[in-house]
Amino acid sequence: MKILTINPNASEIFNELLRNKTSIYALPSTNIKVVSPKSAPQVIEGIYDEALSIKSTIETFIDLEKDFDAFIIACFSDHLATYAIREITRKPVLGIAEASIYLACMLGEKFSIITTNDRWGPLLKEAVRKYGVETKCASIRTVGISISDLEERDNKNVKKAIENEATIALCKDGAEVICLGCAGMSRFDKELNKKLGVPVLDGFVCAIKLLEIFHQYGLTHSKINTYSKPLYKELTNLQSKFSKVYKKSKKK
Amino acid sequence: MKILTINPNASEIFNELLRNKTSIYALPSTNIKVVSPKSAPQVIEGIYDEALSIKSTIETFIDLEKDFDAFIIACFSDHLATYAIREITRKPVLGIAEASIYLACMLGEKFSIITTNDRWGPLLKEAVRKYGVETKCASIRTVGISISDLEERDNKNVKKAIENEATIALCKDGAEVICLGCAGMSRFDKELNKKLGVPVLDGFVCAIKLLEIFHQYGLTHSKINTYSKPLYKELTNLQSKFSKVYKKSKKK
Amino acid sequence: MKILTINPNASEIFNELLRNKTSIYALPSTNIKVVSPKSAPQVIEGIYDEALSIKSTIETFIDLEKDFDAFIIACFSDHLATYAIREITRKPVLGIAEASIYLACMLGEKFSIITTNDRWGPLLKEAVRKYGVETKCASIRTVGISISDLEERDNKNVKKAIENEATIALCKDGAEVICLGCAGMSRFDKELNKKLGVPVLDGFVCAIKLLEIFHQYGLTHSKINTYSKPLYKELTNLQSKFSKVYKKSKKK
Amino acid sequence: MKILTINPNASEIFNELLRNKTSIYALPSTNIKVVSPKSAPQVIEGIYDEALSIKSTIETFIDLEKDFDAFIIACFSDHLATYAIREITRKPVLGIAEASIYLACMLGEKFSIITTNDRWGPLLKEAVRKYGVETKCASIRTVGISISDLEERDNKNVKKAIENEATIALCKDGAEVICLGCAGMSRFDKELNKKLGVPVLDGFVCAIKLLEIFHQYGLTHSKINTYSKPLYKELTNLQSKFSKVYKKSKKK
Amino acid sequence: MKILTINPNASEIFNELLRNKTSIYALPSTNIKVVSPKSAPQVIEGIYDEALSIKSTIETFIDLEKDFDAFIIACFSDHLATYAIREITRKPVLGIAEASIYLACMLGEKFSIITTNDRWGPLLKEAVRKYGVETKCASIRTVGISISDLEERDNKNVKKAIENEATIALCKDGAEVICLGCAGMSRFDKELNKKLGVPVLDGFVCAIKLLEIFHQYGLTHSKINTYSKPLYKELTNLQSKFSKVYKKSKKK
Amino acid sequence: MKILTINPNASEIFNELLRNKTSIYALPSTNIKVVSPKSAPQVIEGIYDEALSIKSTIETFIDLEKDFDAFIIACFSDHLATYAIREITRKPVLGIAEASIYLACMLGEKFSIITTNDRWGPLLKEAVRKYGVETKCASIRTVGISISDLEERDNKNVKKAIENEATIALCKDGAEVICLGCAGMSRFDKELNKKLGVPVLDGFVCAIKLLEIFHQYGLTHSKINTYSKPLYKELTNLQSKFSKVYKKSKKK
Repeated sequence: MKILTINPNASEIFNELLRNKTSIYALPSTNIKVVSPKSAPQVIEGIYDEALSIKSTIETFIDLEKDFDAFIIACFSDHLATYAIREITRKPVLGIAEASIYLACMLGEKFSIITTNDRWGPLLKEAVRKYGVETKCASIRTVGISISDLEERDNKNVKKAIENEATIALCKDGAEVICLGCAGMSRFDKELNKKLGVPVLDGFVCAIKLLEIFHQYGLTHSKINTYSKPLYKELTNLQSKFSKVYKKSKKK
Repeated sequence: MKILTINPNASEIFNELLRNKTSIYALPSTNIKVVSPKSAPQVIEGIYDEALSIKSTIETFIDLEKDFDAFIIACFSDHLATYAIREITRKPVLGIAEASIYLACMLGEKFSIITTNDRWGPLLKEAVRKYGVETKCASIRTVGISISDLEERDNKNVKKAIENEATIALCKDGAEVICLGCAGMSRFDKELNKKLGVPVLDGFVCAIKLLEIFHQYGLTHSKINTYSKPLYKELTNLQSKFSKVYKKSKKK
Repeated sequence: MKILTINPNASEIFNELLRNKTSIYALPSTNIKVVSPKSAPQVIEGIYDEALSIKSTIETFIDLEKDFDAFIIACFSDHLATYAIREITRKPVLGIAEASIYLACMLGEKFSIITTNDRWGPLLKEAVRKYGVETKCASIRTVGISISDLEERDNKNVKKAIENEATIALCKDGAEVICLGCAGMSRFDKELNKKLGVPVLDGFVCAIKLLEIFHQYGLTHSKINTYSKPLYKELTNLQSKFSKVYKKSKKK
Repeated sequence: MKILTINPNASEIFNELLRNKTSIYALPSTNIKVVSPKSAPQVIEGIYDEALSIKSTIETFIDLEKDFDAFIIACFSDHLATYAIREITRKPVLGIAEASIYLACMLGEKFSIITTNDRWGPLLKEAVRKYGVETKCASIRTVGISISDLEERDNKNVKKAIENEATIALCKDGAEVICLGCAGMSRFDKELNKKLGVPVLDGFVCAIKLLEIFHQYGLTHSKINTYSKPLYKELTNLQSKFSKVYKKSKKK
Repeated sequence: MKILTINPNASEIFNELLRNKTSIYALPSTNIKVVSPKSAPQVIEGIYDEALSIKSTIETFIDLEKDFDAFIIACFSDHLATYAIREITRKPVLGIAEASIYLACMLGEKFSIITTNDRWGPLLKEAVRKYGVETKCASIRTVGISISDLEERDNKNVKKAIENEATIALCKDGAEVICLGCAGMSRFDKELNKKLGVPVLDGFVCAIKLLEIFHQYGLTHSKINTYSKPLYKELTNLQSKFSKVYKKSKKK
Repeated sequence: MKILTINPNASEIFNELLRNKTSIYALPSTNIKVVSPKSAPQVIEGIYDEALSIKSTIETFIDLEKDFDAFIIACFSDHLATYAIREITRKPVLGIAEASIYLACMLGEKFSIITTNDRWGPLLKEAVRKYGVETKCASIRTVGISISDLEERDNKNVKKAIENEATIALCKDGAEVICLGCAGMSRFDKELNKKLGVPVLDGFVCAIKLLEIFHQYGLTHSKINTYSKPLYKELTNLQSKFSKVYKKSKKK
C-alpha cells in the first residue's frame, strides 16, 4: 500500500526524522512518502500556526490523492485538515495524536502526553476531549522546549527532559503509558521505553501501523454523516481544484 | 466603538441580513462593518468549507484590525479563525455561536439549537462541548434545509420549519431557550419569540451586545496561556503580513 | 432602565461598595438602587445564613417589583431567592456569581474563583456545577479571610491576599480569568486586572451589564417550564402578599 | 431513638399519610413525630413554594431539636433546610429524596423517579446531580397530577397513573428500581412493588430506616467543612433563637 | 434474619476480625455466619487474586443459600461474584465497598477511601465509577502496607499509617468522610472516628446494617434486567449444582 | 507470530466461526490457534456465565502461554480473565470488545454495538464506560436473539435482524460505525458493510490485527501499576500452577 504523509509544517528536518522511522516499522509492502505543503510555518505551536497550514495541507492532499491509498497528517494536534480531508475522500486519513492516543488506551489504564511547551497544553486537552477519552488521560506535560529547539538542541538534553516529565507522569499523575506529543520527539520512543519500562508511543509509527491494518481489513472512515461529501457550492477566488471535490450532483 | 464583523463565507445576501440587524440592536455609539473575506465558499456547511475560509478570514482581520475595537466571526460554528485571531490580537473576538449559547444558559435551564441540515449536527455538538455546557444543551435540531436554500426559499416556509423543530425541542427535549443556528435564520428571532413564548436568540445580536459590554467594562480575552502571542517563526510561501503579527522578540 | 439590586445580607458597608461601582460602569440611562432585606444576617457565609435571608429577599422583591425593570441578587452564591423570584416574575433576575462565571467562560479557556473562606468552597463548586461549566473552572481558591473581616481589614492586605491566590490559580491551576467571589472584593477588579494581566471580573458589574443588554435586546427568562408561574395554593401563617403572586386561575 | 419528621408543607393529610407509614416499618424502639412548620404553603411544587417554607422549617428544628436524636425533612426535593440544619447540629438529618435515591442505587443498575407534574422535573434532575448519581438515573417521569390532587383524587386513578409511568420507565428508559417522588404517593409502595415486580421505594421509610442504622452504628454528618458550624454574626430583625445556634466563640 | 458473609479470601484471621464486629453492631435478631470459600488465595490484592476466588465464592453461596436471608461478599473490591450471585438469587447480596460508599455519600460532601497498597488504586477508582459516584470521591489513598502485613503488623503502626493518609485526604483532597478500604482495617473505625472527628466507615458493618433494613422494609435487588435469571445452558466439566440455578424453562 | 485465542465458552461451533476468519485477515506470518477452556458454559450471556469461565480461561492461558506471543480473549464482554492474565504476563492480551471499540472510535464520530439480547445491555454499557469512550457510543442495540440461537438459526434471518437494528442505530441514534457485539455475528461483517455503507467491525479480526501491529512495533501492556505482577501468596486448594505465576521474591 502507499501512504502519503503530510507534515503540515515546513521543516525538512522533521520530514527526515519521519522518513527514518518508516524504514524501521512499516511493512515491506508499505510505501511511504513524506511531504510538506507548499506554504506553511516552519513549526506549528498553536492555532494561528495551524490555521496558516490548513488550506495548503488540503491542497497537497488534492494534488496527490490519486497516487495513494491512505494519508497521515503528521502534526501532533487535532489538525483541522484531517477532518476537512475526510469529508472529500473515501480513503482513510489519520492524525498522529489520535493514532497514538487510542493505542495507548489499550496498553494501560491511563496515558500521559509529553509535549514541547505550554502553548500545546490547552490544544491537547481539547484533542483528548474530542477523542472522547478524557478519563484515560492522566496528564499533559510539557518539557518547556520550543519545537524549533527540538531541531537544534543536543539530543541527550532533550531526551533527559522528556524522561524527567514522563517519570513524574508515571509516579505522580498515575500514567502507565507515554505518548510523545511532537514529531520532533518521535526518535526517542524505544530508548525511553527501555529506560522507563512502560510503552512509549510515537504517533507517526502508530498511524502507519493502523493504516496498514485498515488496509488489510478493508476499513475506511464512515461517510454517513460527519464525513459525508459536502454539497457543491461556488468558491470565490479559490482555485478550481478546490471545487472539483464537491458532490457532483449540484443542488438546484 | 467600532466592530468589524467578518462573515467567513462569500454570501452578500447574508451580509445584508446581518447589516439589517445592526441598526436595530446596536447602541447608537456602536459602528459595525460587515465584510466577507476575499476568498471563501458561498456558504459554509462542514469542516471542508470552513477550512477554505480560515486563512482569508485571518487575512481580512490582519488587514483591517487597526481600525476596529472588537471583532465578530459571523459563522454559527466554532470557527477556527476565532481562536487563531485571539492569539494575535489584544482586542476581543467573539463567534456568534458562543455568544448566543452562553446568553442562553442564563435565560433558562436548557437551550436547543435549531440549524439547517445534518452536516451541522456533529459540528455543533462539538462546539457545545468545547464551550463546556453540554449539560445545558437539550438538543441540536435541523430543519433539513441547506444554507443556500435559506437565501432563496420563501421566508414563510423557512420560518414554519424552524418553528416546528423549535416546538419539538421545547416539548420533547426539555429546551427552554432557542438559539438560531445560522446567520440566515437570524431575521426570525423576534417573530419566533412571540410565537413560541420563549427567548429566541440570534447569535449575531448576542455577539454585538456582548462586545459592547466588554468595551464598557474594559474586558478582552486573557493572553496568559491559550491566547498568548505565538513566537516568531519563518513562513514559507506566505505573505509577510502573516509573520508581522508574531511576537517581536525573535528567539535565537 | 431601572435595576433593583437586593444584597441579601444586612451589611450597609457592602451596599455602599456596590453603589460605588454602579456610577462607573452602568450606562447613563441605567438607574440602580441597592437595598438589603428587612431581616437578614450581617454577612452570608454558608447555607444557614443564606436560608435566613431567602424569605425576606423575596419579600423585598415583591414589595418593589413594580418600580423596576430587572433585578440583581447580589450575593456570590447560587442564592435560592434568584430561582424563587424567577418563578413569580416575567422580568429578568440575575445572580452575581452566574453573571461573572458565564462572562469568564468567554474570555479564556478556564477561570478560577477567589473567595473568602473554606465555608464557600463546596457552595461555589455546587454553583459551578449547576451552571453547567465545571470543565471551564480551574479552581476555587480561598484567601482565608472571613467576610466580616473584608469590611474591616486594611485594603492593602486583603488585596495582597487575593493577588496571591489568583497568582497560584493562574500559574498552577491553569486559570486564565479570575472571578472575584465576594461582593466585598469587588472594588479590586481593575487594580488586580492590571497587576495580573488577565481579566478580573466583579460579578456585580457583570450582572448590571448583562441586564442592560437583556433590556436592549428584549430578553427575559424563559417561563416555559422551570420558571413557570406556580399554581395557587393556600399559605398558612404567611402574609397575603406572598399568595398574590401565584397563578390567578385557581385549580379546582 | 426519637426521630422528628418535619414535613415542610402545611398539609395535615400528608402528615397523616406519613404517620401511617411509621407504624409499619419503624423499629419498635423508634419513636417518630411528624409536624409541619408554623408557616408554610399547603403543598410545595417548585422553588418559590420551597423558599417560603425554609425559615420556618429551620425554626421548627431549633425549637424541637433537644428532644430528638435525628431528623427527616419530608419533602421529595433537595430541600435547602436540610443543609442549613446540618450546619447547626451534630445530629443526623436526611431528606427523603436523598434517602430513597441512594438505596435505589444499591438495588438495581438504574432507577427512575415518578413524581407529580412537570414543575418537579428540573428540580429533581438537579437533586440527582447534586447527589452525584446522574449515571444511575434512568429518567424522571411525571404523572401530570398536581400535588393537591394527590390528596383528593381517587386512590385507584392515582395508582394507575403511577403504574403507567413506572412501566414506561422500566421498559423504555432502562430503570430497574422505582422511587416514588412525592410523600403523597408513598402509600402505594408495596402494591406497586407487587404489580411491577421491582423494588418501589418510599423515601420516608428509607429515611427512617437509614437514620435507625446511623443511630445504631453511631454515625452523623461530617462537621469538618461543608457542614461546619457557621461563625457568629449579627442578625437584623430575626428572633434571637436563630443566632443562638452560631459558633459560640465570637470572632473579634 | 440470617446473613451469610463470604470472605472471598482464605484468611481465618480476617474472618475473626469480621466476627468480632458482628457482635457489636448487628441487631440481636440478626444472626451472622462468616466463611471463606473452599479454595481461595490467602489475601486478594488485584484482579488475578480475585479471579481465583470467584467460582468458589459462588459455589459457597449455592451450597449455603437456602439457610440464609441475605449475603455479604466481604472483599473491599467490586467483586464479580456479587453480580454473578445476584443473577441467580432473589435474596439481597451486598459488597462491603458498595455499602460503605453509598452511606458515605449521605454523611458528607465527599469521601475518601484509605486502602492498603497501590495495586488497589485503579480497582477502587473503577468501583467508584461503577457505583456512579465519582464526583463524590475526593481521593483513594494507600498506606503502602500489603494486606498480609495488616494481619501481622503492630496495630498501632497500622492505625497511625491510616490516620496519616486520612488526614491528608481531609485537609488536602477535600474529603469529609473516610471509608476504610480493607476488611483488615475495619477494627479501627471508631478509634479513628474519634481522632479525626469525621465519620469513619467499616464496609462490613455498613453492609450488615443495610441488609437489616432491606429485610425490614422487604427490599431485594431488582430482577428485571441486569440481575434477571440466566437462561439454561449446558455446562462442560462443571458440577451439576452450577446448572441447577439456571432458569428452569429450558429454551428449545 | 503466534496468537492463542481463548474463546471462554465451550461452543465448538463458535470456535469454527472464529477459525474461518483467521485465514482471511491474518498476515501469512501470523499463526492463530483457537481453543475453549476445559470447563465452561456453552455460551456466555451474563455475569454468572462469565464467572464460571474465568478460572479455567486463566488456567488455559497458564498451560499454553509459553508457546504463544499474544492472546485474545474472544468473548464480546469486558471479560475479567483479560485483566487477570495481563497481571501475570508480559505478553499482550486483548479482548474482542475493546479491540473493535477503539478502532471504531477512529472511523467515525460515534459507534453503536449490535448484540444478542437484553442481558448484554448493561454489561456492554459498563464495558464502554470502562474503556472511557462513553461519549463516542451512540447506542447499544439488541436483536432479541439468544446466543444459542445464533448457532442454529437461519443465517439470513439473523443477518436481517442485525441489519434492522444497525439501520436504526445509524438513522436514529447517530451512529456512524457498527460493532458486531458477539463472536456469533462476526461472519456478517463484510456483507453488512456493503449493505449499510458504513464500517462494520468484527472484534476478533480487530484483535488479531492490533496484536500484529503490537508485535511489529514491540508493544505490550504497561506493567507499572494496574497490571504489575501480584505478590506471592499462599493458595488454599488451588493447583500449584496458579501460584507459580506470582512474583518470585516472596515477601517475608
